[in-house]
Amino acid sequence: MTAYRAPVADLIFNLRYTAGLPDMAAWPGLAEADIDTAQAVLEECARLNEDVLAPLNAIGDRQPATLSGGAVTSTPGFKEAFRQYAEGGWQGLSHPESVGGQALPKSIATGCIEINNSANLSFALCPLLTDGAIEALLTAGSPELQQRYIPRLISGEWTGTMNLTEPQAGSDLAQIRTRAEPQPDGTYRVFGTKIYITWGEHDLAANIVHLVLARLPGAPEGVKGISLFVVPKFLVSDDGALGERNDVWCVGLEHKLGIKASPTAVLQFGDHGGAVGHLVGEPNRGLQYMFIMMNAARFGVGVQGMALAERASQAAVAYARDRVQSRPVDGSSVQPVTIIHHPDVRRMLMTCRAHTQGARALALAAASHHDAAHHHPDAEQRTLNQAIYEFLVPLVKGYSTEMSQTVASLAVQVCGGMGFIEETGLAQYIRDAKILSIYEGTTAIQANDLVSRKTQRDGAALALWLGERMGETADALDGHASQSGAADALRLARDALTGAARFMVEQAGNPNAAYAGSVPYLLLAGQALSGWLLLRSALVAEAAGDADAQELSAKWITARFYADHILPQCTTLAHSVLVGHDSVLALAPEGF
Amino acid sequence: MTAYRAPVADLIFNLRYTAGLPDMAAWPGLAEADIDTAQAVLEECARLNEDVLAPLNAIGDRQPATLSGGAVTSTPGFKEAFRQYAEGGWQGLSHPESVGGQALPKSIATGCIEINNSANLSFALCPLLTDGAIEALLTAGSPELQQRYIPRLISGEWTGTMNLTEPQAGSDLAQIRTRAEPQPDGTYRVFGTKIYITWGEHDLAANIVHLVLARLPGAPEGVKGISLFVVPKFLVSDDGALGERNDVWCVGLEHKLGIKASPTAVLQFGDHGGAVGHLVGEPNRGLQYMFIMMNAARFGVGVQGMALAERASQAAVAYARDRVQSRPVDGSSVQPVTIIHHPDVRRMLMTCRAHTQGARALALAAASHHDAAHHHPDAEQRTLNQAIYEFLVPLVKGYSTEMSQTVASLAVQVCGGMGFIEETGLAQYIRDAKILSIYEGTTAIQANDLVSRKTQRDGAALALWLGERMGETADALDGHASQSGAADALRLARDALTGAARFMVEQAGNPNAAYAGSVPYLLLAGQALSGWLLLRSALVAEAAGDADAQELSAKWITARFYADHILPQCTTLAHSVLVGHDSVLALAPEGF
Repeated sequence: MTAYRAPVADLIFNLRYTAGLPDMAAWPGLAEADIDTAQAVLEECARLNEDVLAPLNAIGDRQPATLSGGAVTSTPGFKEAFRQYAEGGWQGLSHPESVGGQALPKSIATGCIEINNSANLSFALCPLLTDGAIEALLTAGSPELQQRYIPRLISGEWTGTMNLTEPQAGSDLAQIRTRAEPQPDGTYRVFGTKIYITWGEHDLAANIVHLVLARLPGAPEGVKGISLFVVPKFLVSDDGALGERNDVWCVGLEHKLGIKASPTAVLQFGDHGGAVGHLVGEPNRGLQYMFIMMNAARFGVGVQGMALAERASQAAVAYARDRVQSRPVDGSSVQPVTIIHHPDVRRMLMTCRAHTQGARALALAAASHHDAAHHHPDAEQRTLNQAIYEFLVPLVKGYSTEMSQTVASLAVQVCGGMGFIEETGLAQYIRDAKILSIYEGTTAIQANDLVSRKTQRDGAALALWLGERMGETADALDGHASQSGAADALRLARDALTGAARFMVEQAGNPNAAYAGSVPYLLLAGQALSGWLLLRSALVAEAAGDADAQELSAKWITARFYADHILPQCTTLAHSVLVGHDSVLALAPEGF
Repeated sequence: MTAYRAPVADLIFNLRYTAGLPDMAAWPGLAEADIDTAQAVLEECARLNEDVLAPLNAIGDRQPATLSGGAVTSTPGFKEAFRQYAEGGWQGLSHPESVGGQALPKSIATGCIEINNSANLSFALCPLLTDGAIEALLTAGSPELQQRYIPRLISGEWTGTMNLTEPQAGSDLAQIRTRAEPQPDGTYRVFGTKIYITWGEHDLAANIVHLVLARLPGAPEGVKGISLFVVPKFLVSDDGALGERNDVWCVGLEHKLGIKASPTAVLQFGDHGGAVGHLVGEPNRGLQYMFIMMNAARFGVGVQGMALAERASQAAVAYARDRVQSRPVDGSSVQPVTIIHHPDVRRMLMTCRAHTQGARALALAAASHHDAAHHHPDAEQRTLNQAIYEFLVPLVKGYSTEMSQTVASLAVQVCGGMGFIEETGLAQYIRDAKILSIYEGTTAIQANDLVSRKTQRDGAALALWLGERMGETADALDGHASQSGAADALRLARDALTGAARFMVEQAGNPNAAYAGSVPYLLLAGQALSGWLLLRSALVAEAAGDADAQELSAKWITARFYADHILPQCTTLAHSVLVGHDSVLALAPEGF
């Protein structure tokens, strides 16, 4: 089992040259958000995760959480690790100081989320969901609800969950049937079954704060009749003391392909009289509130993809440096060499590296736009940056999670038969990765969002604007010795992106044609922009003149590999979008 | 859990219009190899596999073989299923009548191997390895060894294994250390440790015939000093009776990501005085013999990939037809519909279908060339067909196994959260698929074979010859209403193939550049030829005028989907080969 090392240097590189963190310190409220702070935070984060959480990752896979008599016992070591995580203040990293958080920019927090998920994805899901619950309460909760719940979620005394899915309502939340009945005292009684509730029951914290979608009596059909409720595992009295056990019970844990240490619960609400809940915000607006929280969670899951890819890549590199097998093809040694000297092993490792670093650039760029949307002094800039962030979220989620599966599979491939043996730990990454393209909205759901809300709605204006930025980088590369090939590749990827975006707008009245290519469009956009950001970061670093020479050289090589081997896929994907829609739908359902 | 249904109709379609089985009946020794025979054999094979073996697949995953006191107990039900398999005569399908086989052409046998592996991949590995042992004995064994072992391997009384890998000798068999010491009685004593021995120990049969690579005293270093031995689990007396237990012991079973019902053994030879072995063929030629057997096994593993893709696709289609979720994007229903009506689900299902049927066409074409190489009346044709078969084997192995991972992942994606839950059975396909691109030579090993022995050695003559055939099909498509898009796609794929093949020849003196693109070259060749064969089979069927209209229409659609969505990837892969080799190797090993 390889020790995990947090990629602090590459995170700092991206904070400098992709996210532009040095400029942010001039913005209101971000005075302390400089590179020194980032370095200190990331190093501290690395310590906890490398030493405590990373070694628990394989243990969690072998000894998943168990359910007995309604109580879930988590993997040995997790409870103590969670205590350390909470005491370190990591849950409050990006939340407002007013509720006990540290108000760090999302750009820096994203690095910490990556490190936490690389170390232990199953564990990291618990804080990720708690973040979502905090966001939802901050968005729509009354001051009283905020005061009662948020400080203790941030302190790690309690944790949070998101209760959306029901057996008949997965991607289609319109089908939710869980109901909430108003009580004379202003509370509600909640009745229903929720499935796939991540960390829905556990023993890490004293209380669990469930955020639950349910219908009020007489609520409109469909998504317009869904409200949001807080349903705590233990009732909380006005003085904050824990009271009676609420009527929400874990009746099952799923037996899953991966993320085994993360208990995925079936929760039963109200079988014994009704679970006491509190309405969050206004009636029938629950899905809107949930979407705010889901956007953050979707971004977080994208970061999980990149984090898993980083860890799998590290394991593959370590194995390739250690395993001796076969003589080099160029005859440079008569003795067998470590397999990292074999060209195809290098191709696999470079593919892992390029995808991981590309997705990291994309995520940190998105985070920086989020920061600018909240802190930039200019209102127009805030609006533009919010739009860019929202455009990028489905790409971060969709592209990073899909590529994480490719990377995990390649990492196992590098290790050959040893990769297939569970004891080596590599196989876990394949098993863990597969959920990432499913939960918090499948890749197709992300692609729907990208096509309709992010492309068709503004007539592809933002996609074309991004295309112009790509073109500028390509022009800058023209002036760069030996990067003309990258400039050409970038222009072709730009053409693929803008062509596909225009197609989506043109086909607004022909949804079958548009959505037949929605996922190819998402993947091409994710790759086109990741490749662009990699190349741009190298240019920016070079112009800045303050980058470590070795680091910059490696970034050029990685960006160029991306341009040679991954960017050209954008053209193929655009062909799928523009030309291939008929053949997607030509075979009738009964013809399969 | 979806019931598996053998794709007999598509196999017959391919036997008719891809493999050209109707023409084979005119060749010596294949008089009975007609479509009627094929139909009868495949239907009988389907019955056993659908009814008996397919239901055992998930059981084997949950209750793998176990080791206790050196004895392996296989999954409940496997022993009885193996008895039925043996009694049905399935082990002898493609072996000569002289040793008790049925001498069916490989084209037909391939269909049976597919069905067997779709039903139960872990089970099917046992006959697959036994086939390999039979081939090795037929190739190099003395008449006495053949007589002693082959009939009982074919009858299913005994099974066979291949013992190649050692801890330090995986892809690089030159490192083998197991040794064989000659005895005065003409036998040998074998000492050493072999790992990853599939079905290396079990209780399905009374004896296990291990084919073992080992070194004789004073043998040359490297691959030229390796000899092949038969080492039976129980010694066999001259009258064929089982005698003493031989000194080969199972000391461990691997805990694997997938194919769990197939016991992967660590075998210890000679810890108690030496395992009695018999030399097969001449000393120091073991690797040559093993290569003959490995070519058959590599082809078989390619068929496993296609078989697993077929089963995963069936499960995804069944789920997509059953699961109701969300209204259709085109507004054609105000009620939620089964998800097979959603464009992206169709795109995923068509991708699964196109890859599976493409790989099936490739495998059956390869099998038909093997049959022609052995039975065509014209010697020149036999030579040409043997060369084509040998060119196609690494593609069948490499492409089919890589795409099976894509298909298994997409099948789970279609099922969303339900796919990630182990109980639904879909997740097993992801876990099982990953071994296929590793064992019997990783994809990189297949690609090395393709580059050196199959492309550089003949100056790419065969690759260019295949390119000409592709061009002919493109020309024929020009004359076909509505298929001009497919013709264009096919020409681009042809250009990618021939361009990459020429590059490999040009770079014969620059092995790092060639091998940096070896796997992309393999994948592009596999896809280019699979897409070509799909389109050609539709043309041939149309010209024949005797195909079922619905089947033919579905084949055109599937072939066109391949042309729109998969063939264009060949161009990207060719770019990796021609342009991308520098960036593969630019980052030094210590730079990772």
